[in-house]
Amino acid sequence: MPAGDTRARHVCTSCGAIHYQNPRLVVGCIVEWERKVLLCQRGIEPRYGLWTLPAGFMENGETTADAGVRETLEEALAEVEPIGLFSLIDIPYINQVYMLYRASMSRPKFAAGEESLDVRLFDESEIPWDELAFPAIEKTLRWYFEDRTAGAGFGLHTGAIRKRPGSNTGTPAVRKTQ
Amino acid sequence: MPAGDTRARHVCTSCGAIHYQNPRLVVGCIVEWERKVLLCQRGIEPRYGLWTLPAGFMENGETTADAGVRETLEEALAEVEPIGLFSLIDIPYINQVYMLYRASMSRPKFAAGEESLDVRLFDESEIPWDELAFPAIEKTLRWYFEDRTAGAGFGLHTGAIRKRPGSNTGTPAVRKTQ
Repeated sequence: MPAGDTRARHVCTSCGAIHYQNPRLVVGCIVEWERKVLLCQRGIEPRYGLWTLPAGFMENGETTADAGVRETLEEALAEVEPIGLFSLIDIPYINQVYMLYRASMSRPKFAAGEESLDVRLFDESEIPWDELAFPAIEKTLRWYFEDRTAGAGFGLHTGAIRKRPGSNTGTPAVRKTQ
Repeated sequence: MPAGDTRARHVCTSCGAIHYQNPRLVVGCIVEWERKVLLCQRGIEPRYGLWTLPAGFMENGETTADAGVRETLEEALAEVEPIGLFSLIDIPYINQVYMLYRASMSRPKFAAGEESLDVRLFDESEIPWDELAFPAIEKTLRWYFEDRTAGAGFGLHTGAIRKRPGSNTGTPAVRKTQ
């Protein structure tokens, strides 16, 4: 435990550098084209073969929007422009915070990136709800289609996922905090 | 560079663990009491003696709101309830993302925590604008009073600070992204 700190940290035995382990941001994009949404089929573990919005860990030197745009380029080979933050979901049991931006593409050009098996546009009725990779992605898509159906514009949606999927504690997996 | 990665990482020479360095979340609270806002005078470096909203690095196992509540308890010894996310500010040149929640306290009980010299409630006209510790805090307070003056409720404000304060490049320090 470094001096003045309140928690044990990883310290490099070679140079003394302290490697703090803090929650990481997972940032991605909801890209819509002619009322269809772009999903990627994962070609890597975890959740190989399941579908997700393009998203991944934010890197140093980026803004959150930069990270969402980069991940969409890497995973879906699509060039997008961020529109605005749509969802922010805390997942404390895995030390992650998800942020999904709405984003636009100027033409429907996309393909499977190195970590994807397939990339496709899905109509709301075609979303593979039972084959989505992560609960934060499912929740974001449900909020997205709710907002679109309501027709009053897209708000910011926030919440927390406090239990692993499948854990049976009687409390709802997603708690709306705002 | 670990296999399959695209960037050099810190790897422990003892156990091989990869210590990724990703942007960190700085989370805090805007606490209002009878139209005054709670500010802390910093008792630690950097920016010793300057004023700030209670805020600090999010820790593992927390939600973003948890982190803001904990930091407010540590720095201002105030027990607060989060109301909603108010600002989200990217600062890519220091690999940080700031998030400030609005929060309420049920009674005006507060005092200087271990890392604070003083904690006080400030009316809008009393805010020490020239003695604020960080540009993200100044920007958040300006948005807060703008929203309060407009009287149409508090929205989410997002932006990025892309230049160090004092660097003279002709571009504005804060760019509103939403």
